[in-house]
Amino acid sequence: MEWITDVKILIVGLGLMGGSYAKALKRLGFYVTAIDAKQDSIDYAVRNGIIDNGSATVDPALVSEADAVIFALYPAVFKDWIEKNQQHFKSGAYITDVTGVKSAVVYEIQQILRSDVEYIAAHPMAGKEVYGVENSDDAIFKGANYIVTPTEKNTEKAIKWCESLGKILGFERISVLSPEEHDEMIGFVSQLTHCIAVALMTCNDSKELVNYTGDSFRDLTRIARINENMWSELFLLNKENLISQMDCFSAEFSAIRNMLANGDTEGLKEKMRLSTERRAYFDKTPKGSTKK
Amino acid sequence: MEWITDVKILIVGLGLMGGSYAKALKRLGFYVTAIDAKQDSIDYAVRNGIIDNGSATVDPALVSEADAVIFALYPAVFKDWIEKNQQHFKSGAYITDVTGVKSAVVYEIQQILRSDVEYIAAHPMAGKEVYGVENSDDAIFKGANYIVTPTEKNTEKAIKWCESLGKILGFERISVLSPEEHDEMIGFVSQLTHCIAVALMTCNDSKELVNYTGDSFRDLTRIARINENMWSELFLLNKENLISQMDCFSAEFSAIRNMLANGDTEGLKEKMRLSTERRAYFDKTPKGSTKK
Repeated sequence: MEWITDVKILIVGLGLMGGSYAKALKRLGFYVTAIDAKQDSIDYAVRNGIIDNGSATVDPALVSEADAVIFALYPAVFKDWIEKNQQHFKSGAYITDVTGVKSAVVYEIQQILRSDVEYIAAHPMAGKEVYGVENSDDAIFKGANYIVTPTEKNTEKAIKWCESLGKILGFERISVLSPEEHDEMIGFVSQLTHCIAVALMTCNDSKELVNYTGDSFRDLTRIARINENMWSELFLLNKENLISQMDCFSAEFSAIRNMLANGDTEGLKEKMRLSTERRAYFDKTPKGSTKK
Repeated sequence: MEWITDVKILIVGLGLMGGSYAKALKRLGFYVTAIDAKQDSIDYAVRNGIIDNGSATVDPALVSEADAVIFALYPAVFKDWIEKNQQHFKSGAYITDVTGVKSAVVYEIQQILRSDVEYIAAHPMAGKEVYGVENSDDAIFKGANYIVTPTEKNTEKAIKWCESLGKILGFERISVLSPEEHDEMIGFVSQLTHCIAVALMTCNDSKELVNYTGDSFRDLTRIARINENMWSELFLLNKENLISQMDCFSAEFSAIRNMLANGDTEGLKEKMRLSTERRAYFDKTPKGSTKK
């Protein structure tokens, strides 16, 4: 019987997310290695027992011994890495990722990938407003959603493997969506909310006003602290979905604005009742619940 | 020397806010009474020691013995109450309130009020998404803002009294703003954020999508549970300010949408950097801080 301790997992990109994966997997008993351009990150991770071994360059030995490779890179860097280094993959290896958009990434990489290696895409919906392996923390997976996004090219076995990876990492709800379904969903629940938070934070220059903020304003702008390099790339790769969600929100926001301008009290109350009813449904549904 | 225990305070409207005032004031040693249309609320408050005495009708004896009267009613009901019952006020009494909009309330009530009684307006920026005296809790004042909004009709003595009331209730930051300054500020930090939360909650019908929500969506919609009677009245009474803030937000949101549509990566990053920098200022400034 092959056991966890015989399985070698390589993490490419040892930031907050890669580091959190490493911590969880190492704790479970896997042999965990990492490649990251920053020597400091590798040194920190080895010194703190987050990984067993690592390299700041693409060491062919590390890549070729890995049974599974997890990519925690920005989308464009991920594609580039595959193009340049895929000859080193072990035959039969599984590849997965943590990328926040799917359609723009999955098909292209599956297209260029060697046929004896399988890429099964996933999106762990977890994070923090801080960066780097030093801040990594596998507690962020607790209660969170993990989405596997297979295509027709994926085998049942790889899909099951990827679902199981999400489970052992500690995610609460594991789902399977097509890349297209995933991107529509993420455009609404995550990207739209980040656009709103940024616009709310940047639309008013008055520091004076900000001094009077209470919990409402703080809640709505918590995610306005945003990594501009990562998020601008993710937004642009999911442009059509995000624009469509933004237009949908804008239309609703304008409708409420016009009810107000027209003194339509009943219309306003109706929107508020609907909003209250829907939000109450949430409070009954624990985060990550499978309730439908 | 007259002491706290000799001062009689009447609270009109014993809901969440009135009840929280009562609890705080009673604990400090004041003699606290209340008038509320619901006999149940009065009974509950007397039984639980939240007030010393109360009535479900406008009892002239309760009104005329009060040194100070705090109104925790919806704006229209507040005005109506003053018109019908002001003959009972004790000469020299102070009147204050908890109303969330000011210009539309303060001038009119000061206009109709007896000249031997002084109304000094205030807005305690505290609350909860629950209602009723049963849920009242003076811990909601901790760390919160309390705004006194005097007009030219107010005396220095009454303004000082009202500031002191905010302090002893436990508010962290006591400010003085004109009714107009208050309404502009509240349109931005509170009413706009509630409109955004409602629109986000009502713009998409898909329960399927909601199942994938994470912390971002939950944060942005916490305040989407909203009392439609109170908030529609407050929105309409501050219509001009709120519409102007909504238009300002919409313009910014559209600008971000168009940067996305045009693939303007640098523009997007610039907005995100500004947003991050401004939000970071918050995290350095504790809630209710006086830092400017």
